[in-house]
Amino acid sequence: MFRKLLTLEEAKKIIEENFKPAQIDDEDVALLEAYNRVLKENVISTIDVPAFNRSTVDGYAVKAEDTFNADENQPITLNISGIALTGEQPKNVLAKGEAIEIVTGAPIPEGANAVIMLEDTERVDNQLQIYTAIAPYMNIMKKGSDIKTGETILHTRQTLGAPEIGTLAALGLTKVRCFKPPIIAILSIGNEITETGKTLIPGKIFDINTYSLSTAIIECGAKPIIFGIVPDDKNALRKTLITAISSADAVITSGGVSIGPYDYTPQIVDSLGKPGVVISGIAVKPGKPTTIAFIQNKPIFSLPGNPAAALLMFHILVRPTIFHLCGKAPHETRTIRAFAGAKLFSAKGRRTFITVKLALDIEKERLIAEPITEASGAITTLTKADGFIEIPENQQYINKDEEITVKLFRQT
Amino acid sequence: MFRKLLTLEEAKKIIEENFKPAQIDDEDVALLEAYNRVLKENVISTIDVPAFNRSTVDGYAVKAEDTFNADENQPITLNISGIALTGEQPKNVLAKGEAIEIVTGAPIPEGANAVIMLEDTERVDNQLQIYTAIAPYMNIMKKGSDIKTGETILHTRQTLGAPEIGTLAALGLTKVRCFKPPIIAILSIGNEITETGKTLIPGKIFDINTYSLSTAIIECGAKPIIFGIVPDDKNALRKTLITAISSADAVITSGGVSIGPYDYTPQIVDSLGKPGVVISGIAVKPGKPTTIAFIQNKPIFSLPGNPAAALLMFHILVRPTIFHLCGKAPHETRTIRAFAGAKLFSAKGRRTFITVKLALDIEKERLIAEPITEASGAITTLTKADGFIEIPENQQYINKDEEITVKLFRQT
Repeated sequence: MFRKLLTLEEAKKIIEENFKPAQIDDEDVALLEAYNRVLKENVISTIDVPAFNRSTVDGYAVKAEDTFNADENQPITLNISGIALTGEQPKNVLAKGEAIEIVTGAPIPEGANAVIMLEDTERVDNQLQIYTAIAPYMNIMKKGSDIKTGETILHTRQTLGAPEIGTLAALGLTKVRCFKPPIIAILSIGNEITETGKTLIPGKIFDINTYSLSTAIIECGAKPIIFGIVPDDKNALRKTLITAISSADAVITSGGVSIGPYDYTPQIVDSLGKPGVVISGIAVKPGKPTTIAFIQNKPIFSLPGNPAAALLMFHILVRPTIFHLCGKAPHETRTIRAFAGAKLFSAKGRRTFITVKLALDIEKERLIAEPITEASGAITTLTKADGFIEIPENQQYINKDEEITVKLFRQT
Repeated sequence: MFRKLLTLEEAKKIIEENFKPAQIDDEDVALLEAYNRVLKENVISTIDVPAFNRSTVDGYAVKAEDTFNADENQPITLNISGIALTGEQPKNVLAKGEAIEIVTGAPIPEGANAVIMLEDTERVDNQLQIYTAIAPYMNIMKKGSDIKTGETILHTRQTLGAPEIGTLAALGLTKVRCFKPPIIAILSIGNEITETGKTLIPGKIFDINTYSLSTAIIECGAKPIIFGIVPDDKNALRKTLITAISSADAVITSGGVSIGPYDYTPQIVDSLGKPGVVISGIAVKPGKPTTIAFIQNKPIFSLPGNPAAALLMFHILVRPTIFHLCGKAPHETRTIRAFAGAKLFSAKGRRTFITVKLALDIEKERLIAEPITEASGAITTLTKADGFIEIPENQQYINKDEEITVKLFRQT
């Protein structure tokens, strides 16, 4: 197969053009299980929250006008005519010259338009002395001030966190309609790959990518389905890929994409349907042999076997597609500005990604991005990395101390 | 009970001094279920990864010295004496003047010390023409270059993500020893609180805090246990609190902490054991009535009923404690620099937290932190917020356009 290296932007554009996913299924999810789920529909309130004017403090409900002449030297006196408690409609109507004792969260009695804080009053039996004037609506949370009937309070494609789930509870809901998480198939290709827990015979290595990629898929909010290790065997690979494609919304393979005589992956994937392979190598380092196909409208990402390259390519190319399959609104990777801790060189003609660790330069009060200079492909480099920087294709290097943008791996 | 308002720093110090949690339980977790779990012990490798010198490209294994005189005009010629494949020990030993075909990931044959890329060679039958000199160890990932035997590759208290779980797989492990997630009890206190799904009668509101706080607890990596709604009734509250304390590692209540006649929470909590209430109000806004106790070495956080204040106090005071109970290493809230979108006023003498939404000022290429100015206590304010800013006790305001630090709520 002819391998033309595309730029990263060209590759992203081709993915976008070919990706026409089927409608995403949805399901009802109990509020307490909805953390990190994605909203299927806009949520429109059918109630006012709060449903009544509510006191935000402990004190006395009054007519603000009755306090206007109060000051420290000339307190005014009101008659306490009752008490307003939480969870029930106040019994009394407030008349001019009166105050009604009220607790935090209780409905404001009819006739009252402000609450004066306990601390600003002095009570003697049923007489209340007020030493300060207050404005109308002071210490009142008005009916509908949090949520109004008919208001769209949450939007389709939003991911649900604590405030969103609290907001759904405020409406009295017990469940919410969410997109179903997509199923992502994973397989590791290569005669040298050994299942974890087995004995490692000389020349073999353990299967890293099944584990790192599954975890990355879970982190996206999707569900991995694991097809394990497939040897460098055309028939085995074809059979597994067919099952994987029919059981999942997308497939991620690693290994078998180099130009060696046993690198069958692109050829087999291409034979399984239309359009087949649409991206056959990208001008990036690492990740050059990355191959991307679409079969039955499902994306097949064939990543390099090198664990660090596979995980970086996952972050850059696969993750946005999985977010889309999850129903999530597109969002940018979080970035941070820092200064290069060393001169950083690019690979000729390729977009170069360099993993970095951030350190604080206390003297100069700035962040330094130190390149992680260990063996290429080492999975451990990524455990030490905070993020990566990109050097464009047409740039030879970044100077030490140059200001750069670091894309963060972890969001915590 | 005497209520002396502490500063936020004093409150944090008192929590630290009183918090002597029991040893955290641990358990084995399968690698594929270990996402976001916390490592109980350091992980020390018992193997080299890779366990052999490995080719990182498709090409030919050679003696680098044999290529030193090669250039574009004067290629050197080597005899191809075999092939090295993945997953098996190479059969041939490389002699001077020879090349062995090799695929990505295969062990380097004895006698070879470099790999020349396929693209830089020309093969005619069993003769290989080489047009460029290569240095020793070129395109070889050395034995142990990713992980060395005896090396500590992961550390106790680390949270496991994709690279860490990949690293554990590289060692051939199938499970990992993790701390057990702590159990955090939640209860909502107040006569006005109604269970979601029920009909709301006048004067009542739905239980928001059970849902927002449970989700916040899940987000921390802990497990909520829900005790539901407790009315303003001393006996009911005492009974529920006793069960909650004995079933959980920490307890979070909301509501019933104001100074009204039915705010029993601090008094009841204090009666349940030693040292009892250690923090009885904090000079912050919102969150002033926050009460914190320790009973049987377990922290009891009594937050205000106001949902926005409860969630903000959770973020500032409860989350670090839950992280500790999870076994996580302490870590700072992520911050970002921005410019105030409006003049922001503080509450007199109290640390003031103002929730803000970030917006990009495209013209000036900077982030603007716009305060969210809706009703105090509105849970919806938090669905719109990216984070919050702090105004110190002794500062009256922050000017519009002043540079400020925003603490981010969400890490995504």
